[in-house]
Amino acid sequence: MKAYILTIGDEILIGQVTDTNATYMATALSEEGYEVVEHLSVSDTRAGIMRGIDHAMQSADIVLITGGLGPTKDDITKKVLADYFDTELIFHQTTFDRLLRLYHRFGKEPTEAHRMQCALPRDAEILTNERGTAPGIWMEKDGRVLVSMPGVPYEMRYLINNEVMPRLREEYPVDDKVRSLTILTAGAGESTIAELIEPVEDSLPEHMSLAYLPNLGTVRLRITTRGDDEERMQAELEDNKQQIEELIGQYVYGYGRENLAGAIGRRLIEKGATVATAESCTGGTIASLFTGNAGSSAYFLGGAVTYSNALKKAMLGVRLGTIKKHGAVSEATVREMAEGGRKKLGADYVIAASGIAGPGGGTDDKPVGTIWLAVAGPEGTYTKLLRAGKDRKRNITFTAHQGLDLLRRVLDGLVK
Amino acid sequence: MKAYILTIGDEILIGQVTDTNATYMATALSEEGYEVVEHLSVSDTRAGIMRGIDHAMQSADIVLITGGLGPTKDDITKKVLADYFDTELIFHQTTFDRLLRLYHRFGKEPTEAHRMQCALPRDAEILTNERGTAPGIWMEKDGRVLVSMPGVPYEMRYLINNEVMPRLREEYPVDDKVRSLTILTAGAGESTIAELIEPVEDSLPEHMSLAYLPNLGTVRLRITTRGDDEERMQAELEDNKQQIEELIGQYVYGYGRENLAGAIGRRLIEKGATVATAESCTGGTIASLFTGNAGSSAYFLGGAVTYSNALKKAMLGVRLGTIKKHGAVSEATVREMAEGGRKKLGADYVIAASGIAGPGGGTDDKPVGTIWLAVAGPEGTYTKLLRAGKDRKRNITFTAHQGLDLLRRVLDGLVK
Repeated sequence: MKAYILTIGDEILIGQVTDTNATYMATALSEEGYEVVEHLSVSDTRAGIMRGIDHAMQSADIVLITGGLGPTKDDITKKVLADYFDTELIFHQTTFDRLLRLYHRFGKEPTEAHRMQCALPRDAEILTNERGTAPGIWMEKDGRVLVSMPGVPYEMRYLINNEVMPRLREEYPVDDKVRSLTILTAGAGESTIAELIEPVEDSLPEHMSLAYLPNLGTVRLRITTRGDDEERMQAELEDNKQQIEELIGQYVYGYGRENLAGAIGRRLIEKGATVATAESCTGGTIASLFTGNAGSSAYFLGGAVTYSNALKKAMLGVRLGTIKKHGAVSEATVREMAEGGRKKLGADYVIAASGIAGPGGGTDDKPVGTIWLAVAGPEGTYTKLLRAGKDRKRNITFTAHQGLDLLRRVLDGLVK
Repeated sequence: MKAYILTIGDEILIGQVTDTNATYMATALSEEGYEVVEHLSVSDTRAGIMRGIDHAMQSADIVLITGGLGPTKDDITKKVLADYFDTELIFHQTTFDRLLRLYHRFGKEPTEAHRMQCALPRDAEILTNERGTAPGIWMEKDGRVLVSMPGVPYEMRYLINNEVMPRLREEYPVDDKVRSLTILTAGAGESTIAELIEPVEDSLPEHMSLAYLPNLGTVRLRITTRGDDEERMQAELEDNKQQIEELIGQYVYGYGRENLAGAIGRRLIEKGATVATAESCTGGTIASLFTGNAGSSAYFLGGAVTYSNALKKAMLGVRLGTIKKHGAVSEATVREMAEGGRKKLGADYVIAASGIAGPGGGTDDKPVGTIWLAVAGPEGTYTKLLRAGKDRKRNITFTAHQGLDLLRRVLDGLVK
């Protein structure tokens, strides 16, 4: 079953926004087993939209469209849709009533523009948008379906998950189902992992596949299988997961949509332990990765961001003599940051990082990208030297992931 | 002059990666005055690529392609290009020599796959890629040009900036030039700003336009003009900038590509002052926004991330009695965090934030999204209550931007 993704908006064409809607829809469709044949982005013009719809409907069974459903004058998708389906726009009272209730709740009155938003193609099935004012529109022609959704990402996501995918599953089922499983790894590069799991990859049957999704120090591995026998498919995934873990178990931190900081949180809760951070070059990034997870206050106490040497001393108890002798970027300093952090911040574990993030500040001795990490815990202190590149943002993210992974390895008993 | 963006790769179609290359190319083309008519993403198949190239070449004068130039077997773009242009692939010695030099420098030998990468379409102009092994390919047909580039973003960006745009400017000039100017604002929503600058927007001549680029508490305003008279265009932009600033000057923090934390850094350097952070709900995000800027150590000293009440006391000197009486999320606590931060961290200015980021933890009295901000400085302490939504990540980013903007307003003398 073929699917097409059509996004509408000049803001995409001129590069003002990146089309993350297309990515989201593509993932939802692919995970269900639909074959996404193309993504196309067109301008807000009548000619552009018409050409796009026509091309999409000729290329696939299912066409998902975002954009151009708002209340302003450049939102013309609905009108073009009505013309393409040779029908007209009619006022949709139920949608307007919903809008009225929504507005009254906030003590507002809908404007004429909002009333216009309730003019919808005759015969279209209306998908209620619980996140905004413009509903989704489901229209069929010659055994093909076109679904038009608002371009606001969180409205589109609501419609995809709660309206569109359930209906597609029901009315446009794929013969072969697709099931996948994601193994999350950290601490080894894509090529290292590929080499280690080569035997598994080479022995995969035709209907299974393996994808690598690397991101600055972490690699997600997605195993996918197709077929109509759910039980067999689950068994295949489980079997491959076990084979892969026998080869790279030490790098695996979790599964599915978990993130590294959250996976560490899970381990800390199990242990009844707490963590804090002592960051120089990562500048608060490790703390923000922990606190990005809901519920992190159960194990994350806080952190010290110590850019200046004075604060390394005041907040973490690093001796200025150590910095003078070895430099702020050194094993000795980062060790004192982590160990001092344990005392001053009162956490069971502390991750510390100090390095030269760049682009300036490097020396012959310690070039840009020289970064020291330490993890201090009840078992002792472990340090690690990184040699990263020259890009500041990449170095910060890479270091944060490596620091988290060092703690993960300590918690998993993998560091001696 | 019309342009088309074609990106090749199954990883885009299935949603494994977001197509940021399209955004980058679209921005480069639009800023130069080319009209980008569509973006299309196709699969790695011969049929998909051929159909894409054909459609693109029929739709525009300039076609930019990324993807499928690597050394692996699914990289078939070159072969399809040769067929489309009715030519053949020939071994390109100069490219291979470059590759040999590159590899020898790293003490490696190129593989047969790399040799294959040097088979390039006859008559194509080769664009040297200083960031990788696959060169860009420039081919012309019937007064139209097609440029094929590797999909690795930083290789593509190098080619766009150093090879493609300079050649397009020379060989496919746009009659009308496009010039734009970006005004950066914070502290007011898109609709507020739109209302305030309505008189300017309404009086813009046909050849000028104004775009709003909102992002969780900040709005970028881009004024664009077209024409052939550089001097007049610059004068138009400057005139509109002044008019806009007369209306919303208090929200303007900078211009162009600057970010809010960097703009504050510029002000602090001018004053010879320093800043530190005292973060609870933002969990290190404000610190990471400062330290994301190169050179931030000139004004950013560090920060305390105090999730636990114990650390609010230990690191910032907040009295536990204050927390007990008013709660951790309160004006009294956030004020003590900021003022205590000044003493303990030794900075001239401290930004403090404490709130309920969500999704859990709200009460009737203090629902999710209730957030207090404070900025303490030599002039005194200023506080602000935010009422944000329910989404944790959005709340954190929004709060961080609002906190930075409160300090910006203090530094600009706008807060009484």
